[in-house]
Amino acid sequence: MNNYYKKYKRDFDHSYTYGVFPTLELLTYQPKQALRVFIHTKGKENEGLAKIKDLCQKYGISIEKADGLLAKLSSAENCYAIGVFKKYQTAIENSNNHVVLVNPSDPNNAGTIIRTMIGLDVTNLAVIKPAIDIFDPKVIRASMGAIFQLYFSYYNSFQEYQHTFVFHHMYPFMGKGKHILQNTTFQKPFSFIFGNEGSGLPESFRTIGESISIPQSDKIDSFNLSVAVAFALYEATRNKKN
Amino acid sequence: MNNYYKKYKRDFDHSYTYGVFPTLELLTYQPKQALRVFIHTKGKENEGLAKIKDLCQKYGISIEKADGLLAKLSSAENCYAIGVFKKYQTAIENSNNHVVLVNPSDPNNAGTIIRTMIGLDVTNLAVIKPAIDIFDPKVIRASMGAIFQLYFSYYNSFQEYQHTFVFHHMYPFMGKGKHILQNTTFQKPFSFIFGNEGSGLPESFRTIGESISIPQSDKIDSFNLSVAVAFALYEATRNKKN
Repeated sequence: MNNYYKKYKRDFDHSYTYGVFPTLELLTYQPKQALRVFIHTKGKENEGLAKIKDLCQKYGISIEKADGLLAKLSSAENCYAIGVFKKYQTAIENSNNHVVLVNPSDPNNAGTIIRTMIGLDVTNLAVIKPAIDIFDPKVIRASMGAIFQLYFSYYNSFQEYQHTFVFHHMYPFMGKGKHILQNTTFQKPFSFIFGNEGSGLPESFRTIGESISIPQSDKIDSFNLSVAVAFALYEATRNKKN
Repeated sequence: MNNYYKKYKRDFDHSYTYGVFPTLELLTYQPKQALRVFIHTKGKENEGLAKIKDLCQKYGISIEKADGLLAKLSSAENCYAIGVFKKYQTAIENSNNHVVLVNPSDPNNAGTIIRTMIGLDVTNLAVIKPAIDIFDPKVIRASMGAIFQLYFSYYNSFQEYQHTFVFHHMYPFMGKGKHILQNTTFQKPFSFIFGNEGSGLPESFRTIGESISIPQSDKIDSFNLSVAVAFALYEATRNKKN
């Protein structure tokens, strides 16, 4: 049965949490999606593993020792737990703020963005295809498992997203935007829209809602995408009274 | 001669810039440290490569085609240029703001932090050992070459750093800090002090200067280090009149 599980590929219907902490997050927030858990015999005194066992028992999820499989599935050493789960989508909320990632291509950035969002209580993410698989284990790891507290949905085009959320206030983030981030009072619910890591948003987004610039020195080309999203969400949630 | 160059190892006196953009940054800001440049025959119509050739000519830096060596040194495909440079240290400035990273262990975070710093004109970094090599090619790549505009220095202990900059206002960032980030007016020059990715700052830092908390939901354990630094520097530089 264990031979059924192969190293992650994008077209699988399932994916993996590598490590104790993300596996705990899976079992805590999405136990219905969890298919089974594999643990390493070496981790027997790990406090997190004890919690994993409790949660598996509570939800009737199969848990077994499988040192060889852990080594095969994960390239990292010291991976004491792997959760196997069914990929899912959740509807995103009509009444809440969104982050919209247009064609994201870097799983580490996506995971870091999700961790930042959950940490600032902005819990809805729209992903415009083509895009990375949001359940790529690299995304899960960079999110530290925060992904299991996220509402997210894929859209085939930005238009499809836009037509679904006609009452959202759209703010595309781009160079030479109409407004400066720290001078803007954002109307809610907002959609903060960010382009691909390499190419940014196409010029056509300039006519959508109110475009926003993040001020920077001319010493760099641009900020890292996950840092740009961090600045934007920090500013928008800086003073909850706004 | 080309066989002299091996894949990066930490104990080398030299390191590499992988890719056209970081190599351009090296040649623009630290041409005296550049030893030589290798380029790929495939990149001949690349605009950046033309600029690299001009800069090499201007500074008398050897440049040669070496497709095989590029493939050997870099694991990435489509790497059209590699710069070889001598590692260096620069003094950090006594009169300017600093970021202090205590025992950083993730090169991607370090590079992202450097890119953020340069983008916000905070150009001085102190690194407290043990730490990653700041010239690890992964740091350089994540910094997008911004590292070549950075003043930085290693210290064997935080005490050594602290005794060197006695007039700096020290702000250790840690959980349950005395002040909340967005309510703090920072005295300048400041030292923003951040701990290791996994363990954070030791408790002993609580008595140093004024400790600062970054508010977060209890849904996550902590923000990614590069995001925490981004929030702090964004807040400190948000309104230049402060």
